[in-house]
Amino acid sequence: MATLTIDLNEVLRLGVPRAIILWLAAIPSLREREHELAALEPHEAAEFAALLTPQTAAELFDGLNPYVTGYFLESLAAGQAAKVIGWIHPDEAGRALREIPTANRHSILELVDEAARQPIVDALSWPEESAGAWLQPALAVVRTGQTVADATGSLSNTSSSTRASYIYVTDPDDTLVGVASFRDLVLASPETLVESVMKTDVVTATPLEDREFAARTLNDHRLKVLPVVDGGRLVGVLTAEDMASVLEEEVTEDAERQGGSAPLDMPYLQAGPFTLWRKRIVWIAVLFAAEMYTGTVMRAFEDELSTVVALSFFIPLLIGTGGNVGTQVSSTLIRSMATGQVGIRNLPRILGKEVCAGLLIAVTMAALAGLRALTLGVGYEVGLTVAISIAAIVVWSSVLASILPLVIKKIRLDPAAVSSPLITTLVDGTGLVIYFTVAKLLISALQ
Amino acid sequence: MATLTIDLNEVLRLGVPRAIILWLAAIPSLREREHELAALEPHEAAEFAALLTPQTAAELFDGLNPYVTGYFLESLAAGQAAKVIGWIHPDEAGRALREIPTANRHSILELVDEAARQPIVDALSWPEESAGAWLQPALAVVRTGQTVADATGSLSNTSSSTRASYIYVTDPDDTLVGVASFRDLVLASPETLVESVMKTDVVTATPLEDREFAARTLNDHRLKVLPVVDGGRLVGVLTAEDMASVLEEEVTEDAERQGGSAPLDMPYLQAGPFTLWRKRIVWIAVLFAAEMYTGTVMRAFEDELSTVVALSFFIPLLIGTGGNVGTQVSSTLIRSMATGQVGIRNLPRILGKEVCAGLLIAVTMAALAGLRALTLGVGYEVGLTVAISIAAIVVWSSVLASILPLVIKKIRLDPAAVSSPLITTLVDGTGLVIYFTVAKLLISALQ
Repeated sequence: MATLTIDLNEVLRLGVPRAIILWLAAIPSLREREHELAALEPHEAAEFAALLTPQTAAELFDGLNPYVTGYFLESLAAGQAAKVIGWIHPDEAGRALREIPTANRHSILELVDEAARQPIVDALSWPEESAGAWLQPALAVVRTGQTVADATGSLSNTSSSTRASYIYVTDPDDTLVGVASFRDLVLASPETLVESVMKTDVVTATPLEDREFAARTLNDHRLKVLPVVDGGRLVGVLTAEDMASVLEEEVTEDAERQGGSAPLDMPYLQAGPFTLWRKRIVWIAVLFAAEMYTGTVMRAFEDELSTVVALSFFIPLLIGTGGNVGTQVSSTLIRSMATGQVGIRNLPRILGKEVCAGLLIAVTMAALAGLRALTLGVGYEVGLTVAISIAAIVVWSSVLASILPLVIKKIRLDPAAVSSPLITTLVDGTGLVIYFTVAKLLISALQ
Repeated sequence: MATLTIDLNEVLRLGVPRAIILWLAAIPSLREREHELAALEPHEAAEFAALLTPQTAAELFDGLNPYVTGYFLESLAAGQAAKVIGWIHPDEAGRALREIPTANRHSILELVDEAARQPIVDALSWPEESAGAWLQPALAVVRTGQTVADATGSLSNTSSSTRASYIYVTDPDDTLVGVASFRDLVLASPETLVESVMKTDVVTATPLEDREFAARTLNDHRLKVLPVVDGGRLVGVLTAEDMASVLEEEVTEDAERQGGSAPLDMPYLQAGPFTLWRKRIVWIAVLFAAEMYTGTVMRAFEDELSTVVALSFFIPLLIGTGGNVGTQVSSTLIRSMATGQVGIRNLPRILGKEVCAGLLIAVTMAALAGLRALTLGVGYEVGLTVAISIAAIVVWSSVLASILPLVIKKIRLDPAAVSSPLITTLVDGTGLVIYFTVAKLLISALQ
């Protein structure tokens, strides 16, 4: 086993292309490579790029976070960036270039070799979130009528060891008619026709479908490679490795949306304070505007509040608990929707389940809240008001948090936008209305 | 392409083992198989189990959600369950049995065939969250000194088409010394020694390490199979398909924890209201207890509240916004920690970044809050108090939310437990203290 320790500074000191080969061998982890690459100063990036060869560039950027690749390319002069771009897989190059502002992107692309440019332009032509943006060439394709020997022969000529797990069989107009695993071919006798080895019932994706959907199809069918067909014609494949990064990125975006931010679209450590501010301030301001409603509610009940000051003691407790229950419900539900387990078709079942669970929680919380009111010594009327209000708020919050994500999905927005901050904000205002209404009905001094 | 439509009810009507083969071919999606299986009544489950053969059982349960498999087995008589268990891959059988209460599990295991039982008991012996619980046999193992021809010959004898993407080379005492891809072997000449084809720098996992950590290693190195070694000896492999389900499950658990629940550990639609109550009530009650502190704070400032009732108008707005900012910070940070991008080593950098971003947000919110106070007509003093308080609360909340997940991780708990509800609850009480302290300093009527 190798016990080489070499980092990018050492590579720059050595100053020869071979040093990059050693570094790649010593650092097999993509995450570590990304960390080192992102830490380079612009002049170091230029020095490093000068040492890259077509082979080391292809290996280095294969599977790397497109943001990190884009960031690296952006720190180079356009001509140097164009040279490196020409050595990267076109689909990876396309994704990295999407991270670069349009003007720079075009000035780099113009300088890329004619031959290398077209596939990159093609990759860039698919919408950013589509399966098409992750297309890789289907390396091992044979025509109907060929034999197993022909197929294995053509395989030996392909250079990539990772993408050719399956052989795709097409008819003369490129329509995909079947698939055979590499292993099937090896175990079959060489003179057999590929048609007799192949499986015809092929799971496929289309280039315009959502990349997350395609990634889930691949996982769900336990495939290593998913062929992509456009009107029946085989246009490329999606690999399990790439789809794993797609899912990872989608999960990160969902987590960020759930926390009430816009997705960062870059590694956290690369994001400066101003970027963080920009990704967060829109939602915070929107929620602030929504939350302003609580002030209006409170002022509307100003007389009640000055008559029974003790009422205000319970405001944070009541609306806080309502928000907590709503967050529990929405977070569980949204994750079930993201994994495709639950959809709008399940609304009645979900609502029934959540109302029942909400009632159980309401009873428990009413008992606890009543006890708390007694210990604060606020009297029987306020105690009863608090107990009834918390029960009503918990049930209301459960209903709101179970319906909202489904409705948002129905109108084709991302259910993850129903964030914890959104739920708590909505429950704050409406919870206060419930509380003061119950108070007016129950407390004699207020009547 | 097949256009077969057949569901489990149809299989039961046909009542012959071959019907299951048709059903498996018609429904390649694991999610759909799970839905249909989970919907069977106990007597239907028994009928269906009677039609299973060793082959169809192995195919059906391969990669299925262990909870669904366990639920299915539990609805059978122990003898029938034991028969089916004997046909499932031992690692899958082990995970499904973990979902069954201990007493039932043992009565089923006792009835399993002697030969099939030992591997299952072995699988069950690894801790639930360890890589060991996902171990599969390394099917293609050759000894040093063998030739490429020996290796491909032994491959043809293995039955699984999915697990043998790589050949592992061991020395006579089972120590893993190298790995070669199936493809490397095919393209090498048959009389070559495996040592000259293999790569010796092998990325491995250990059976006792966390399954999530192993899954990330596999992704990070873009492997399809990750060998597991115990003291140097090859004890099995982890597959990319299995590790994809591990990550999916871990992400779901994190999302549930982030929402302030205990993980459900079962598909959402299978969870009844009482289960939901049980998974949620502990955190809700803990948070309620923590939130009770807000009542104490409010009562401590009762005089201030009755002197300037307008102060209470802003309570939900101030603590709500503080909670929202904290949730934004913690959710982004926790996700970055889950993907291994960020750790305690980055604390100074994170804190610096978050304090700066917090200050930017604080300034924006202070301006908005000041404006809001003017529109509510509460006077200059209260307006200034609100503006200063919200700025202080936003910064405090940012600091709390960036330190807490790292501290929790440091003491070896799951950072995802720093849920949105926990952050909002902590900010509620402390935010009130900040608010009333600022009010006492600034408002002349309170001095």
